Amino acid sequence: MESNKEEQAEATLWARKSWALLSAVRSQSPLIQCITNFVSMDLMANTLLSAGASPAMLHALEEIPDFTPQVHALCLNVGTLSADWLPAMKLAAQLARKSGKPWVLDPVAAGASGFRLKACLELVELKPTVIRGNASEIIALANASVGPTKGVDSSHKSTDAVESAKSLARASGAVVAVSGAVDIVTDGERVVGAHNGVAMMTKITATGCSVTALIAAFIAVDQAHVLEATAAALSLFGIAGEMGMEMANGPATLRIHLIDSLHGLDEACVLSRVKITSLS
Amino acid sequence: MESNKEEQAEATLWARKSWALLSAVRSQSPLIQCITNFVSMDLMANTLLSAGASPAMLHALEEIPDFTPQVHALCLNVGTLSADWLPAMKLAAQLARKSGKPWVLDPVAAGASGFRLKACLELVELKPTVIRGNASEIIALANASVGPTKGVDSSHKSTDAVESAKSLARASGAVVAVSGAVDIVTDGERVVGAHNGVAMMTKITATGCSVTALIAAFIAVDQAHVLEATAAALSLFGIAGEMGMEMANGPATLRIHLIDSLHGLDEACVLSRVKITSLS
Amino acid sequence: MESNKEEQAEATLWARKSWALLSAVRSQSPLIQCITNFVSMDLMANTLLSAGASPAMLHALEEIPDFTPQVHALCLNVGTLSADWLPAMKLAAQLARKSGKPWVLDPVAAGASGFRLKACLELVELKPTVIRGNASEIIALANASVGPTKGVDSSHKSTDAVESAKSLARASGAVVAVSGAVDIVTDGERVVGAHNGVAMMTKITATGCSVTALIAAFIAVDQAHVLEATAAALSLFGIAGEMGMEMANGPATLRIHLIDSLHGLDEACVLSRVKITSLS
Repeated sequence: MESNKEEQAEATLWARKSWALLSAVRSQSPLIQCITNFVSMDLMANTLLSAGASPAMLHALEEIPDFTPQVHALCLNVGTLSADWLPAMKLAAQLARKSGKPWVLDPVAAGASGFRLKACLELVELKPTVIRGNASEIIALANASVGPTKGVDSSHKSTDAVESAKSLARASGAVVAVSGAVDIVTDGERVVGAHNGVAMMTKITATGCSVTALIAAFIAVDQAHVLEATAAALSLFGIAGEMGMEMANGPATLRIHLIDSLHGLDEACVLSRVKITSLS
Repeated sequence: MESNKEEQAEATLWARKSWALLSAVRSQSPLIQCITNFVSMDLMANTLLSAGASPAMLHALEEIPDFTPQVHALCLNVGTLSADWLPAMKLAAQLARKSGKPWVLDPVAAGASGFRLKACLELVELKPTVIRGNASEIIALANASVGPTKGVDSSHKSTDAVESAKSLARASGAVVAVSGAVDIVTDGERVVGAHNGVAMMTKITATGCSVTALIAAFIAVDQAHVLEATAAALSLFGIAGEMGMEMANGPATLRIHLIDSLHGLDEACVLSRVKITSLS
Repeated sequence: MESNKEEQAEATLWARKSWALLSAVRSQSPLIQCITNFVSMDLMANTLLSAGASPAMLHALEEIPDFTPQVHALCLNVGTLSADWLPAMKLAAQLARKSGKPWVLDPVAAGASGFRLKACLELVELKPTVIRGNASEIIALANASVGPTKGVDSSHKSTDAVESAKSLARASGAVVAVSGAVDIVTDGERVVGAHNGVAMMTKITATGCSVTALIAAFIAVDQAHVLEATAAALSLFGIAGEMGMEMANGPATLRIHLIDSLHGLDEACVLSRVKITSLS
């Protein structure tokens, strides 16, 4: 019973924290620079807008010195990486660090090729604040290995990647998030799970990329609590998916209603639906 | 009373003109070349298709000499500009001018970096027929200055930018449009306002980019009345937003219903809803 | 009467074959690499996901040697082609061939410029398994000629392109598909027609690109029957459009409901709606 009460108290704390963070994003409207893949740009920008943030998809090397120091957070995503985009990503990461701005790395399909893995590892060395991937991506990064791949889709469950995530977090200094049926977040010591979301979200392209950008917006408004902000962003995006699913007939209507739901999320919904728990 | 009657007569003229232009786009289906940012390509192409125009997103330098002289109008947008795309933009602008085809410039986030501002100013020198931006962008262009920025979102109201718009119009020879709660259109002398649209359109990425492309389609079918065609495009896109809003629950359903409404706009709707007025 | 019975039997065979192929895509979830234009990436990835396949939009030359041999099929689309993307397309096509994987070419706007036509002809020489275009594109390829163009939209009917398609199929060794009110598929000898779909699909950007990717998924699971798999993919995508149209108010809601319908297609629907016939 006592333990039940403690759990209940913890759950309430997570829900209140999540609502406070979403409210801060809405009131501060942080400017989030995204250097991301071509597939995700539309949904990512709309995700940020619907959450109250202000997206900016600028990637030219020439303007990063002027622009990146002005943003509130940076989101790097290697989904459609090519050699000519990598220097801008690196420079933006360096300038974000130098200006004290948090940045998030999405190592899409990290294990799909030697070129891609090397690029991801080089970006990890530039000290991302958060790394978010699916289980296969986090395992590839943690092991620094190219492996058999399902492309951008995961061939592992998130819970298979807990040890890899912890080890990557300790080695990199980043908070590491692993998306899946349960989203795992760890700083190398603590591990929390966000239990929101619906399976059909994996049938919409760029949902993973978009939640990474949402994490950037959340850590922009609370740099002191990166693990909490990351878990909150994952949970709230999952809740938007759950609410969207109630109105959806398939992946395309889910996508639409997910964005609308994220835009309309109110306190009662957030407080009753957030499911974040300590896993260690 | 007299003045009221005159206003009413003017309003009716604007509504009839707008309907005539939309009808012309639908019957002539002008071919619009768009060299635009990655974020906007999907919505821009769908906006043009739903209005009855034919979009073509070709940007390779090598094919512009063959292709651009065949199009009916050109739309240039610097949203995700990089150095390697600029020569194609410039060549396309030059060839459009040379072939007597109108072209429109969307100076996205013009003040966000020195690189971007310089590129925009160079494009302005190639004599766009219309320049459409938000207030912050038009002010940055008119002052030729890089400034504190909210990225791609405006930190000014459109009505704050009237003088900047007039001065940019006179200096460039372009009709200048400033999007906002009221859309402003000026040739440097006349100033008109288009009062349609809903606030939630700013929560959908690429609506500004898309209305710029719609302006290209409208001036393609009436090169002799650029200011009128620009105001009509802004008003009709705003009406599609108003009608979409009646069916929307948030930004994502608004986006869908906006496009459907633009596709379905009929004469009665246009005549009763267009709100364009002289502001000077 | 006899002929009627034969036709009925043939129709039933096509419907059963189409259902078997969709079921195979759903159970095998083939990994489809797409090197495609920027406009289509989102809808193409969502089309593949909704059909049960796994899309991967990787285009960097450096990673193609690692990645392409692992995929189940490759889709190349020249919609927003530029000189720097062509080497990756060629290398991917070569590696697909070498690994015994099928690949599909979408020669978007083939006749729009000399640069584009040359690139398409070079890709045809690398032996695509299937070429799918609209009538104007197939005629341009078959005649190896640049011509007056409506950009990416066709100025010919699919039935005008039957002889061009047969001649291109014989010259290239590919199965050639021509989209239109009736979709034509030929291996140079046999010609079949897929009679599904609705006109409003032409008002949604990237539907053609997306059905090409769907063809890639279908031939990935049945390399021995390329003509049949191609016709089935065209028919099922058309059926999804027909079903989507029942819920749509315009092109944007059609797009959404088309994807949902493709995701939800069941055996009864497929068996009752597939309309594929022999045309020669």
